[in-house]
Amino acid sequence: MTTVKAYAMDGPTSSFHPVTLERREPGPTEIYFEIKYAGICHSDIHTGRGEWGPAIYPLTPGHEIAGIVTKIGTDVTKFAVGDRVGVGCFVDSCGHCETCQAGFEQFCQTDGGTIWTYNNLGRDGLPTAGGYSQGITVEQDYVCRIPDSLGLDVAAPIMCAGITLYSPLTRWGAGPGKKVAIVGMGGLGHMGVQIAAALGAETHVISRTRSKEADALRFGAVELHPTSENGTWDSMRGEFDLIVSTLSDGVELDDLLACVKPQGVVAVVGLPEQRQDFAMSSIVQQQKILAGSNIGGIAKTQEVLDFCAEHNIAPQIEVISGDKINEAWDNVVDAKVRYRYVIDTATF
Amino acid sequence: MTTVKAYAMDGPTSSFHPVTLERREPGPTEIYFEIKYAGICHSDIHTGRGEWGPAIYPLTPGHEIAGIVTKIGTDVTKFAVGDRVGVGCFVDSCGHCETCQAGFEQFCQTDGGTIWTYNNLGRDGLPTAGGYSQGITVEQDYVCRIPDSLGLDVAAPIMCAGITLYSPLTRWGAGPGKKVAIVGMGGLGHMGVQIAAALGAETHVISRTRSKEADALRFGAVELHPTSENGTWDSMRGEFDLIVSTLSDGVELDDLLACVKPQGVVAVVGLPEQRQDFAMSSIVQQQKILAGSNIGGIAKTQEVLDFCAEHNIAPQIEVISGDKINEAWDNVVDAKVRYRYVIDTATF
Repeated sequence: MTTVKAYAMDGPTSSFHPVTLERREPGPTEIYFEIKYAGICHSDIHTGRGEWGPAIYPLTPGHEIAGIVTKIGTDVTKFAVGDRVGVGCFVDSCGHCETCQAGFEQFCQTDGGTIWTYNNLGRDGLPTAGGYSQGITVEQDYVCRIPDSLGLDVAAPIMCAGITLYSPLTRWGAGPGKKVAIVGMGGLGHMGVQIAAALGAETHVISRTRSKEADALRFGAVELHPTSENGTWDSMRGEFDLIVSTLSDGVELDDLLACVKPQGVVAVVGLPEQRQDFAMSSIVQQQKILAGSNIGGIAKTQEVLDFCAEHNIAPQIEVISGDKINEAWDNVVDAKVRYRYVIDTATF
Repeated sequence: MTTVKAYAMDGPTSSFHPVTLERREPGPTEIYFEIKYAGICHSDIHTGRGEWGPAIYPLTPGHEIAGIVTKIGTDVTKFAVGDRVGVGCFVDSCGHCETCQAGFEQFCQTDGGTIWTYNNLGRDGLPTAGGYSQGITVEQDYVCRIPDSLGLDVAAPIMCAGITLYSPLTRWGAGPGKKVAIVGMGGLGHMGVQIAAALGAETHVISRTRSKEADALRFGAVELHPTSENGTWDSMRGEFDLIVSTLSDGVELDDLLACVKPQGVVAVVGLPEQRQDFAMSSIVQQQKILAGSNIGGIAKTQEVLDFCAEHNIAPQIEVISGDKINEAWDNVVDAKVRYRYVIDTATF
């Protein structure tokens, strides 16, 4: 066992406070790595505050994790001590079902299924604990290699925010000759803009106001469309091949569907709490597609890390100390973050 | 001009009565063909009764049309007098926009766009009139060839019901190793079952009751799942690669989405009047796809005709005379038809 410093919350209305966690010694095919940075994802907050159902407390969230390997199991072949590595939303799955074999370990279909990085029970029956801590033990097959040119601080958010956008953008053909819009330019969206532009797509941003217009252009967009201004929706009718919506507070599905070409795709990665309604004619009449998307498998996550390194893409981050997590969460909820908080675990 | 016998309705609550129509002489690249059979599609009824907005009266519906060429324009290259031909939901489009060029003439993007077989204005500015008549003049590029082995009576419904199911089934990969369910086994669904089975998919039917179970098996399904029986929905969770829903009176989207595997597809060809609602998590959490689909282009329609001929697939039809159209419409609305009415225009 290794004792590590961490931050935890004791209940849905609790604040974070320093704790220590015990991490198991790596088994034969596991590695242990020192966590250097952990991103703050809005889903940490939904989970921790019980908005997605009861959580397991004390809870140490964090599924955007980057660090350096310090111990490896006897049979580890993929990593060596000193390697720069990352872990995302899950740390285990069966590995052999049809879905895992197809590279979608996040949808593992066996009993127990995918084991999430926190707020889940591991194979050992103990609660998993995430990246708001100084170290973690993970099966080597669920760890990605961080390219040398990516800082560990900016690599962390790629493990969730990056892959969440890269996955639908590549799945639905963002690239040269395609016109793509990203809806909402927060932690997810600002990665989407950079990735879509680097993929070669003519990239647009759909946002409520113009407040992020300069940033949008800096991230590679050709235009920001402010929906609070009259005529904006009309001007976008039938314009895009692909729209990726990152909004989690409700989406005007009919409006978005009207903005894609015949056979166009609206991919949704946000998870609004309330039910959504739309006219079936919005998809039927021009053979349109409404597609959900949710993170990505390990191979795809490695791919986005390599892609970001190759194209010089990084999240715009604000590094914080452990004692600022509470405040940072409130700022995320209030949409005040530009664009991702990353916790420096050396401050614990 | 050629004067032809037809049936028409004078308003949304009117009955059909015999009329005569004037059909233009074929222009250089047009053909004129004698209509032998016309299928009755539920959308004829929605249109005629004003349920999809105001219609142009007197209205002669019919977009499942089969007949024999009797006149051709001077520059016609694709057809000769005596050829067996079919026309579906549209008779014209610009032919040169990106969408037409991609083979989706039904979504033509130029001003005016696709010209529908009836209830539309043609290039000449005159109202189009459909298949409940003894002849029609159509541009050769919007006409399909009916294979010799297909009777003209059974070929007619393939021009809409057939292509409407063939399109999403082939688009979304129905074939060997795939598990496919057709929801609703009416005029559309009973074609879908036969096509999915012929494509090599393990084909299932989802229906309210077992009343069509024997027919479903006869059409090639391995099982009918009656949703009015307890436990049926639960037994189908995560089972299918693809579900095609033909229901037009509301669809339980969350239920259907729960029945496809991770990354599975629910394709919808029905057009419920009321708005649909669903939980976004139903598509996001396992990266599922909700796809609309609507008929098909000319090349694809030719493909389904050839496919049906090759695989000995035909709609199960009931041939009626012109004076039975009113009664037939009521039976379609009451879901009493097994499975498609086809009008014999020799009875006009």
